[in-house]
Amino acid sequence: MEKLVVIGLGLIGGSLALDLKKRTGYKVYGIDKNKEHIKKALTLGIIDEESDFSQICDASVVIIAVPVHIIPEVTKRVLDTISSETLVFDVGSVKNEICKAVASHPNRKNYVAAHPLAGTEFSGPDAAILNLFDEKVNILCEVDKTDWKILDKALSVFKNLNMRIKMMSPEEHDRHIAYVSHLSHVSSFMLGKTVLGIEKNEQHIFDMASTGFASTVRLAKSSATTWAPIFLQNKKNILRSLDEYIKNLNEFKQMMEDDNDEALQETMNNTNYIKIVLKGIK
Amino acid sequence: MEKLVVIGLGLIGGSLALDLKKRTGYKVYGIDKNKEHIKKALTLGIIDEESDFSQICDASVVIIAVPVHIIPEVTKRVLDTISSETLVFDVGSVKNEICKAVASHPNRKNYVAAHPLAGTEFSGPDAAILNLFDEKVNILCEVDKTDWKILDKALSVFKNLNMRIKMMSPEEHDRHIAYVSHLSHVSSFMLGKTVLGIEKNEQHIFDMASTGFASTVRLAKSSATTWAPIFLQNKKNILRSLDEYIKNLNEFKQMMEDDNDEALQETMNNTNYIKIVLKGIK
Repeated sequence: MEKLVVIGLGLIGGSLALDLKKRTGYKVYGIDKNKEHIKKALTLGIIDEESDFSQICDASVVIIAVPVHIIPEVTKRVLDTISSETLVFDVGSVKNEICKAVASHPNRKNYVAAHPLAGTEFSGPDAAILNLFDEKVNILCEVDKTDWKILDKALSVFKNLNMRIKMMSPEEHDRHIAYVSHLSHVSSFMLGKTVLGIEKNEQHIFDMASTGFASTVRLAKSSATTWAPIFLQNKKNILRSLDEYIKNLNEFKQMMEDDNDEALQETMNNTNYIKIVLKGIK
Repeated sequence: MEKLVVIGLGLIGGSLALDLKKRTGYKVYGIDKNKEHIKKALTLGIIDEESDFSQICDASVVIIAVPVHIIPEVTKRVLDTISSETLVFDVGSVKNEICKAVASHPNRKNYVAAHPLAGTEFSGPDAAILNLFDEKVNILCEVDKTDWKILDKALSVFKNLNMRIKMMSPEEHDRHIAYVSHLSHVSSFMLGKTVLGIEKNEQHIFDMASTGFASTVRLAKSSATTWAPIFLQNKKNILRSLDEYIKNLNEFKQMMEDDNDEALQETMNNTNYIKIVLKGIK
């Protein structure tokens, strides 16, 4: 039985392990420095067996699903020890730093930079769910630097996950994802912070959450250990998006201060265009 | 058959009409200055018949579900013409201005200030749905100014809607709702504006929306004609919440600029408390 190793058994790593264990012929191994995660992953049937770095040389596939700030170090360590047929891919939410980190590695051709755009606000192996990646987009960067046989193996794994593939440069990926994903997380965290800071009566928050607050603040439940490294690694792009966001908030505030009903309505009407852009997405 | 009149057949008025037509013995009439809304409400079975202001004197219940800036004018007009047994309530998202507007009306005792906390991002009679109010909170203000028989009738209507009742002063309502509901709408609209402003490639927005953007930006699909008047009528409270929100965003930005991983993690960990506050809400 061919060996597939998942390093990092959180929401994404755990969900990948679950689906690939069910949908492919691989025997699925897990590595996680948190021994509680290993225990849970075994109990929940997410992995077949525990593994460690000394046992990955004969793996067919190694998936790196650790927080982004340690992805470069872990990926290089994995590339150092694998066989010439091993596919290695990471699933980090920032792509430029890892692509630069492995650019001159002798085994660069065994690596695929991937970002499966899927997830929930929960974390850890308990958060792993089946079918998380179905019909979702998987962004691949710099595939021209990957050996074609390795890339072929990666595409077949992604096909098993039922994902749609998009190609982008790492710079382009990081710029777009800052606006469409990372900024949403910052705005949601700060919304949660603002409401928690002012509302001393938690029952009021609970009672009023059905007004739209619950869905807007959902991402503020996300894991700090996952997201702080993402924010710092994609700092330049996120800071630019935050400047733009704060500028828009200040302009909106000014329209309110001026009682400018017309400008408020025009701004909101224009923004309603998001309905058309996201048509079909619930 | 007793007469129930709904003025304003949008999302909220339409959904109230639908449920009350199904769940009570009232004959349900609709008034809307938009004749297309009347036509649709009749076709969709939301109301039994069209009505107008000259025919509400013998109504048992009149519900006012128009945009908040015209609620005071419409409510006073209704109170001018009703019988002594008519219950009149509005469902506006801001309560202080309407409560002040009717305070000295001779028929003040026939009026109940209500805010059912329910809705979706859609609008118009097409958006009306059954069971929208089940298990949701309905905030009532200044019920001591309502005749007890009228209040009793109101409570029986809200019981039919299967709502949980909370009492608050109008000032308290407007302050809390600014933070928990109105601020969510502003933050979502501005998120949508920021992303639409920068992302020229709409396919990228669509492809990346599963990263959390779709739910965080959901409220930016809301109706400008509903929300501009709400923002202006609750201006003082919303501006305060916006100041707080922008201050928090700037502080977060500073932490990122300083590469202050520890402060970022602490802020996010503290905000994760929202998980506990909203436990059980999807």
